[in-house]
Amino acid sequence: MSSNNTINAYAVMEAGGPFQLHQIKLGALGATEVELDVLYCGVCHSDLSMIEDEWGRSKYPMVAGHEVIGRVTATGEQASHFKPGMIVGLGWNSGYCETCHSCRLGNHNLCTEARFTILTNGGFADKVRADMCSLVVIPEGIDLVSAGPLLCGGITVFNPLVQFNIKPTDKVAVIGIGGLGHLALMFLNAWGCEVTAFTSSEHKKKEALALGAHDTLNSRDPSEIKSASMSFDFIISTVNVNLEWDLYLQALKPKGQLHFVGAIVNPIQFSLFPMIRGQRSISASPVGSPATMETMLDFVAHHKISPQVEIYPMSQIEEAFKHLKSGKSKYRIVLSRKE
Amino acid sequence: MSSNNTINAYAVMEAGGPFQLHQIKLGALGATEVELDVLYCGVCHSDLSMIEDEWGRSKYPMVAGHEVIGRVTATGEQASHFKPGMIVGLGWNSGYCETCHSCRLGNHNLCTEARFTILTNGGFADKVRADMCSLVVIPEGIDLVSAGPLLCGGITVFNPLVQFNIKPTDKVAVIGIGGLGHLALMFLNAWGCEVTAFTSSEHKKKEALALGAHDTLNSRDPSEIKSASMSFDFIISTVNVNLEWDLYLQALKPKGQLHFVGAIVNPIQFSLFPMIRGQRSISASPVGSPATMETMLDFVAHHKISPQVEIYPMSQIEEAFKHLKSGKSKYRIVLSRKE
Repeated sequence: MSSNNTINAYAVMEAGGPFQLHQIKLGALGATEVELDVLYCGVCHSDLSMIEDEWGRSKYPMVAGHEVIGRVTATGEQASHFKPGMIVGLGWNSGYCETCHSCRLGNHNLCTEARFTILTNGGFADKVRADMCSLVVIPEGIDLVSAGPLLCGGITVFNPLVQFNIKPTDKVAVIGIGGLGHLALMFLNAWGCEVTAFTSSEHKKKEALALGAHDTLNSRDPSEIKSASMSFDFIISTVNVNLEWDLYLQALKPKGQLHFVGAIVNPIQFSLFPMIRGQRSISASPVGSPATMETMLDFVAHHKISPQVEIYPMSQIEEAFKHLKSGKSKYRIVLSRKE
Repeated sequence: MSSNNTINAYAVMEAGGPFQLHQIKLGALGATEVELDVLYCGVCHSDLSMIEDEWGRSKYPMVAGHEVIGRVTATGEQASHFKPGMIVGLGWNSGYCETCHSCRLGNHNLCTEARFTILTNGGFADKVRADMCSLVVIPEGIDLVSAGPLLCGGITVFNPLVQFNIKPTDKVAVIGIGGLGHLALMFLNAWGCEVTAFTSSEHKKKEALALGAHDTLNSRDPSEIKSASMSFDFIISTVNVNLEWDLYLQALKPKGQLHFVGAIVNPIQFSLFPMIRGQRSISASPVGSPATMETMLDFVAHHKISPQVEIYPMSQIEEAFKHLKSGKSKYRIVLSRKE
């Protein structure tokens, strides 16, 4: 298939922005590459972190955007699994080495050579290219407008349920009911678990219950967290700031696990004794593999789960990021190219 | 069976000691209790921590000692599994609630009502009593003189291999080659793993290799630890001081686990990013259940593993503790009542 070698993107030319219309000329499509027309692209907090070079890994010009729902327009000669017109998803990684031990085990998301979508050319554009190994076909029954956030936010909270064999009989709590946390509540409810949300206000409490939590605990009230001592098999933290982790460790049952998916830049601190006494553990993980993304999409289609999103035309990307920075988005923002 | 109701113990009457000969009058033997003549009792660093009330949980007079090899002399009416003359072992816990969820799952070592041997009356005495549920029969082929340290030090490093399904194909490293660490090296070698010891001196390096390590890394040389980036599936730390844990986390493979069995009183600190990137985890555990102790003893008998011990007559308990405090014991101390 022939490809259009010009990408019209919303790029930032230096740390912190602003977004500018920017044309990128690409070479011929690689043998294992697929080119997509971007239909929708979610806005993730990690786009902002990378745009602002918060993690010291950014390169400019940068075309961010890594929650892409797109339509295949062209395929490299080896990418015959994908056909023009197919609706596919692209997440945090747009390619993997495919030869390291992690890739061979199916743990592509742990590949140290994985290519970040943002650091090639991401989804804040009319077109995007990615390696065939990174793309997932969007199954029937999924609402395309809201599906983008599944591909980073969603998979980040879904993947631990698969990795750590979370059982429907497990009692699970979620810290931070925002972009990631609201998806975690919906997933866990459908997973069959008894779900508790740690929330910081009466308003958030109602929202959490509506999203799928069966119970809530006030995260600003240490005595309320203490009262939940030895309650949970698994606690998943989606926040990006440090809390008093010892309180949450004590809320774990014996053999319970505190799992981090929110990126916290400052060091984490905890006491070892509650860990030793209860054989508890602390873990963390990044996004998920393509296979796990497929599993998630099937689960989401079956359970009719949709991220709760606010839609902006892609041309209003500056306004969308202002809203993201305000912390008031409910719960995830999607940029649409249907203007 | 009739029991002798007087125990002649080496007790400490207040935090820090000294040891004094102390007689304790006990009531009738309980229905589920077993009384033992103490043959040998290991000396563990946690005896010292409890004697000195380092963990704020001590009560005096205290008869410490919780690595007991003993001969059954009397049994309660329900303790018919045990017969006079049997050689049995007693470790950190001398009884469990037997009704909590952890006990019912077989995870007695996580029972929050577990009774510490030290806080009833421990093994620095001529006799000791314990609940039948806490005792393990010592199988044929185990050297009784050196076996005591298996019952706390040994099970503490053996238990994680069972809990976390360590495979013979795993690459495992041990931090701290002392009382616990020397046993970890022997166990892991017999387990079939490729074993690395983190050691602090040329002398320790030779000892580690003799004990079963296949390789060593200098724990005082950050560049040497960095050179082992992404090397290990499992690292077990037996030390009781904080190290630069981020270095060790980076030495883990993807999905690798840093496991603590050494009790560190100060908070633990680490960076989340290497955890997230590699889906790594941090965990900790206490001793092991009676079932796991039985599994360990069978494994030890089959592989002819013996703790390396220095023997003192129990009457020289003060000298034994001086030696323990010197940090020079190789690698574990046993008090013998065969004077």
